[in-house]
Amino acid sequence: MATDSIRIALDAMGGDHAPEMVLRGAEFALERYPGVQFLIFGEQSRIGPLLARLPRLSTTASVHHTSEMVLPDDKPSQALRASRQSSMRLAIDAVADGRADGVVSAGNTGALMAIAKFVLKTLPGIDRPAMATYFPTRRGESVMLDLGANIECDAENLVQFALLGDVFARTVLGRVEPTVGLLNVGSEDLKGNDAVRGAAARLRGGMTPIRFHGFVEGDDITAGTVDVVVTDGFTGNVALKTAEGAVKMFSESLRAAFSASLMARIGYLFARGALTKLRTRTDPRRYNGAMFLGLRGIAVKSHGAADAFGFANAIGVAVDMKRNGFLDKIRGELQRLNDAQPTPQSTASSAAL
Amino acid sequence: MATDSIRIALDAMGGDHAPEMVLRGAEFALERYPGVQFLIFGEQSRIGPLLARLPRLSTTASVHHTSEMVLPDDKPSQALRASRQSSMRLAIDAVADGRADGVVSAGNTGALMAIAKFVLKTLPGIDRPAMATYFPTRRGESVMLDLGANIECDAENLVQFALLGDVFARTVLGRVEPTVGLLNVGSEDLKGNDAVRGAAARLRGGMTPIRFHGFVEGDDITAGTVDVVVTDGFTGNVALKTAEGAVKMFSESLRAAFSASLMARIGYLFARGALTKLRTRTDPRRYNGAMFLGLRGIAVKSHGAADAFGFANAIGVAVDMKRNGFLDKIRGELQRLNDAQPTPQSTASSAAL
Repeated sequence: MATDSIRIALDAMGGDHAPEMVLRGAEFALERYPGVQFLIFGEQSRIGPLLARLPRLSTTASVHHTSEMVLPDDKPSQALRASRQSSMRLAIDAVADGRADGVVSAGNTGALMAIAKFVLKTLPGIDRPAMATYFPTRRGESVMLDLGANIECDAENLVQFALLGDVFARTVLGRVEPTVGLLNVGSEDLKGNDAVRGAAARLRGGMTPIRFHGFVEGDDITAGTVDVVVTDGFTGNVALKTAEGAVKMFSESLRAAFSASLMARIGYLFARGALTKLRTRTDPRRYNGAMFLGLRGIAVKSHGAADAFGFANAIGVAVDMKRNGFLDKIRGELQRLNDAQPTPQSTASSAAL
Repeated sequence: MATDSIRIALDAMGGDHAPEMVLRGAEFALERYPGVQFLIFGEQSRIGPLLARLPRLSTTASVHHTSEMVLPDDKPSQALRASRQSSMRLAIDAVADGRADGVVSAGNTGALMAIAKFVLKTLPGIDRPAMATYFPTRRGESVMLDLGANIECDAENLVQFALLGDVFARTVLGRVEPTVGLLNVGSEDLKGNDAVRGAAARLRGGMTPIRFHGFVEGDDITAGTVDVVVTDGFTGNVALKTAEGAVKMFSESLRAAFSASLMARIGYLFARGALTKLRTRTDPRRYNGAMFLGLRGIAVKSHGAADAFGFANAIGVAVDMKRNGFLDKIRGELQRLNDAQPTPQSTASSAAL
């Protein structure tokens, strides 16, 4: 599918450097995805002057003025009730009524989740949407979910996340038979809590189309042992941030090592090309854009501190989900499961005991 | 306190490369801690020939023969009931009856925890012991617990872990006023589950001597934001292994970058000295040795795949705990808390709601 019929709604007011990085990010994204159309929601008086300096975007974007916005400290419930004319809400509304194929925001995560869930609704067979991201591994790229939308999860939630991640890996990452692992503290059947044991029992049962690898541990995430890592939102959030922190520590130590002596500085000059490639591959901006999976629409959250390059990648995630037909595919899978199992809602927690 | 009156019991049969790496590790440890005495438990016919080739250790070690051992796949309950003459059990018994100041084993983690808890007992005021380790951060070194001994924890468990970690940081890491953080998915009061919110409410209440920083996130672990990171065993285990995996991925990518071109290989030759220092600092063997805190004795678990250098570090952890008076200090703190609070056992979960 070409990208020139895809329309993306942007919350121009969300993020530390909004609206400038949002607009410059969209301009960047048009290099990679020519012809994408943007619906920009936010303060006209701030957007107009910026847009005038962006030649590609100004010809393909429509601006929808609103002076309201969700603030970083707003509680999700408050943002949901009180901010019906906010840039975030209007951008999500555009997806719900079919004017846009997806929405991207760098604003308040909790508010975005709450409003997206309320406006777009969850897919049939999905109780709670999950946040997912893909990330570099020693073997390529994998996807992990949930990253914090659901602090406490039962076995049924985890099975649904596995299904969402599986379809994402098939459609957007292009894996033919993705493997799915459940994050745990060991690989033996008895390890972990009721939720992971119950989910494993169901996934092993073969009622889903998923190629279930079994339990994986923390070091399997970056090893690329599986294509999809499934976990609850508490653990997933901690794991993702821990990995980012560890890479940051290592990078800083490396930088310090290269400036520690004249010999090391000379060495850096020789190795610079190779090291730049390494830095590019592990640049967190390349992996910016967390997907809300399980909704009847495409919604992507950019990191609040993202720059234009990072925001462009978050736009790319939304475009790729649309282009690769993620929603149609997940609807089809859920329908097939529903037809095969008369009671897909019953939890399997007890099966593990 | 000098190290030459310290006696350490060794489970010579635990670990992938036992008994050789255990004995060679003890020989290594004697370089750093001269005069430490070792009680070695295991198969005499395998230990004897190895010991004959280790000049320092052979003069300061006593060998206690047993042909039984705990196997890697033994269930903890099974090891506890059936293996009363195992090398692991006899080494722990030596601590319980005062013949040794601490025990070090690279064997089955669950069995070691179960037997140590049963034989050594928990300290008064501590419901469940925790596994802790220290690790490198961008600012130095910090300690984290629990790492997997307690998969599900309530607020009271987390408060007890905070107290254990605080005393460890004061005595073994030598911090005057260590800061303690609770691992969570955000820093705001409302974030997280009941356990972390309840523990935070109690720690903020100031009933403990702890300098409570508040919630920390995954990237704060390696940032060194706090001296002590407190979490449940599920999250702690995943976080630690995730950080190890991320560092491993980065190191491998770095190695690949340096062999990617002739220029890069030349650069490596110049920078080798500085890079070796970096590798040394982040060498996981330097941080080998997880402490079981909360017991009435010193018990340290070495990684099962450790080599002699790593095992020597695990011995060093046990020696440092004894030398710095960890047990006396934690007993004193618990006594003081007990005197100050008539009902130290009541949980504070409800206080957060």
